[in-house]
Amino acid sequence: MMQKPSNARGTRDFGPKEMVKRNYVFSIIKKHFERFGFQNIETPSIENLSTLMGKYGDEGDQLLFKILNSGDFLKEISPKDIEFGFKNFSQKIVEKGLRYDLTVPFARFVSMNRSELAFPFKRYQIQPVWRADRPQKGRYREFYQCDADIVGSDSLINEAELISLFQSIFSELNLKAQLLINSRKVLTGIVEALGMIDKFTSFAVALDKLDKVGWNVVQNELLEQGFEIDKLNKLKIIIEFEGTNDQKVINLRTFLSQSEIGLAGLKEIEDVLSFSADQSNLVFDVKLARGLSYYTGLIFEGKAVDLAFGSIAGGGRYDNLTSSFGLPNMSGVGISFGIERIIDVLDTLNLLPSVDSNACQVLFTYFDLEGQLKCLSLANSLRSNGISCEVYPDITKIKKSFEYADKKGIRFVAVIGSEEIKSGLISLKDMSSGTQEELKWTELVQRLS
Amino acid sequence: MMQKPSNARGTRDFGPKEMVKRNYVFSIIKKHFERFGFQNIETPSIENLSTLMGKYGDEGDQLLFKILNSGDFLKEISPKDIEFGFKNFSQKIVEKGLRYDLTVPFARFVSMNRSELAFPFKRYQIQPVWRADRPQKGRYREFYQCDADIVGSDSLINEAELISLFQSIFSELNLKAQLLINSRKVLTGIVEALGMIDKFTSFAVALDKLDKVGWNVVQNELLEQGFEIDKLNKLKIIIEFEGTNDQKVINLRTFLSQSEIGLAGLKEIEDVLSFSADQSNLVFDVKLARGLSYYTGLIFEGKAVDLAFGSIAGGGRYDNLTSSFGLPNMSGVGISFGIERIIDVLDTLNLLPSVDSNACQVLFTYFDLEGQLKCLSLANSLRSNGISCEVYPDITKIKKSFEYADKKGIRFVAVIGSEEIKSGLISLKDMSSGTQEELKWTELVQRLS
Repeated sequence: MMQKPSNARGTRDFGPKEMVKRNYVFSIIKKHFERFGFQNIETPSIENLSTLMGKYGDEGDQLLFKILNSGDFLKEISPKDIEFGFKNFSQKIVEKGLRYDLTVPFARFVSMNRSELAFPFKRYQIQPVWRADRPQKGRYREFYQCDADIVGSDSLINEAELISLFQSIFSELNLKAQLLINSRKVLTGIVEALGMIDKFTSFAVALDKLDKVGWNVVQNELLEQGFEIDKLNKLKIIIEFEGTNDQKVINLRTFLSQSEIGLAGLKEIEDVLSFSADQSNLVFDVKLARGLSYYTGLIFEGKAVDLAFGSIAGGGRYDNLTSSFGLPNMSGVGISFGIERIIDVLDTLNLLPSVDSNACQVLFTYFDLEGQLKCLSLANSLRSNGISCEVYPDITKIKKSFEYADKKGIRFVAVIGSEEIKSGLISLKDMSSGTQEELKWTELVQRLS
Repeated sequence: MMQKPSNARGTRDFGPKEMVKRNYVFSIIKKHFERFGFQNIETPSIENLSTLMGKYGDEGDQLLFKILNSGDFLKEISPKDIEFGFKNFSQKIVEKGLRYDLTVPFARFVSMNRSELAFPFKRYQIQPVWRADRPQKGRYREFYQCDADIVGSDSLINEAELISLFQSIFSELNLKAQLLINSRKVLTGIVEALGMIDKFTSFAVALDKLDKVGWNVVQNELLEQGFEIDKLNKLKIIIEFEGTNDQKVINLRTFLSQSEIGLAGLKEIEDVLSFSADQSNLVFDVKLARGLSYYTGLIFEGKAVDLAFGSIAGGGRYDNLTSSFGLPNMSGVGISFGIERIIDVLDTLNLLPSVDSNACQVLFTYFDLEGQLKCLSLANSLRSNGISCEVYPDITKIKKSFEYADKKGIRFVAVIGSEEIKSGLISLKDMSSGTQEELKWTELVQRLS
């Protein structure tokens, strides 16, 4: 039976210290979600494969974790079935998979519960997802996602509210963050202005790499696709222009003057900007493309200002998310916070608490059975006053209990000896300052509140 | 692509209303765990099968959800392998499984992190687990467990603290609950006193059914096993005796007078009772056996007093949980709260809140673009004062936004019309009382705090 235990590849345990940090970030995000009127839902980890397959492209389908059917899964299988390859074979022995993101289960949920929900429906969801990716630094097979979406309204007020949400979360987390915004419609307008409307996808893919590879590489790629050099030169000027959001809008208005959809997208950008009182960390970035094909309107992406760590949030407007579950024409807009990366960024910048605000404040310790009994009773009276505390379980050398308090970060150690029992007192040592005082039992709650 | 979506069998979605209830119960339990000095940890949903297999008996092994290896899982498989049956075959295509409980992953965690933890280590863990059971009313394939354990100390203070924890949780939940306690050692002593020490397991199994099937059935079963009738008659008197915990101890002391282990167990019961100031809902119940074989000392089980709903909490002391992971002699004691059943009980007794205390308090609504802009700015200033609110996304018939507030349980609707814009006022309607008032914008925060 003896074995050297290990975690499954690409998965992590979170001990008490990491959980303090994680819970701190989760609770701030959750608080702001609720402050903006988003309601919590949870969907199961296990979904029917029919819900998941075909929603994330071929690569996504391959990265789904699939759950073996229970019982005798070979009952209807003949040895010959193996010869048709693992993809065909897996369809015979697997019906369920693990959630790959929170968006598809949300779309399924909305579609199934459409008659009971109050629309526009604003939901948030914070749960783990699983991907059979090759594990590497910062990339895990099990990680949390953290999404807020509004479906059933095409008003740009929703986009504006998501921007405010982004700003208030990072403001409370003390992380300087920037939100880049763009519009799929503006991008479509640009491709139209370039006279290459049927090359939208190649254009978006090329543009998405601009920050990494530089303009020359992107330009060569586009020239190969048949884009015209003089038009690309005009685009280069617009993309490289550094100015205020309003100036960028003015530049683009000329470039897009012949594109109806481009101008409509630009109007949306203008409107959303006008709704945002604080534009100090809001950047209209015409380079922003975002990979996901389901976006149809405004798109956004958050970045940390002081660290090149990649995106810490992303989202946009979509129009057809629920249509594959039989509910067409349900426009929505959402933002997903890259919670695992946010935790890494905050940790790197030393912006996470090392001490749990809910942590134990007092350790009771004693020399004899009488002291033990008194400690148990004092501990319970502290707790009923909302003060966290614990009773050291053994009559031991007092040093050992002090070491325990120190290791666990407990601030006060309360000691009851036989003298204290007689006089109704308790000795309270503050581990952070080293000071010690004698208190009446009845004074303890007040001293620690 | 169109499909009628459904949940995977035995799994549930939790919409906003259910989540309000669930989060209420989770947050109370979490708060008390922390008040008693337990620290939060999380382990991954996916574990190596080698960690899980053989820990839950043959039945448990069958109920594990197994995850198909990713990529071409048939690479090393020949058609002949199918002929050796599904159990052998699954070992070739599966290496990982889903967590079946929180105890085994906790044991693995403690064993792997022994050098960094402060012992006695008190951890709590609230996460879902998965079992490929046949779904039925109240039994799901994915459900939460909620455990608090202390490992690395054999002091009975820990048992006493867990009892206090149980009492404070149900006191705050306003649920009348009883905690039955017994000791595996007392049970062993009884079997010894009955002269049938090698029949401990059959005895425990028979006793466990007593409440359901009655004494006669249990007695017949034990007689068949070879127990003697006159000794069983003496036991019957003890088991059926209704009196105080102290009286029960006195009765048993005579019965167990020849059993060293029995008397040791009884002494532990006495000690733990003496540690518990409040014994009003603490019942020494010699019938309590609990199925799990890993318990070695005190055992307990919680029940709701006003509803025959089965157990709502259970636990006990174990000595060898971590030994299969290479860490012997680590005594521990834990309690697991049956969170799904607790929620069902509270719901049945109407003890759950229907309104989220963090829910949105104010809905802003308006007639024109100017009002819209003012609403966005007022909403953000309310939020920065900690007040939850949202801005209705559309300029619409005002009735529609009132219906939305009503459906979502938002208490106040704040309306800004052109008159209000001119005069710097806002109209605030209290949806619960129906009253309406006009306020200055600057008074809004104070009015709603």
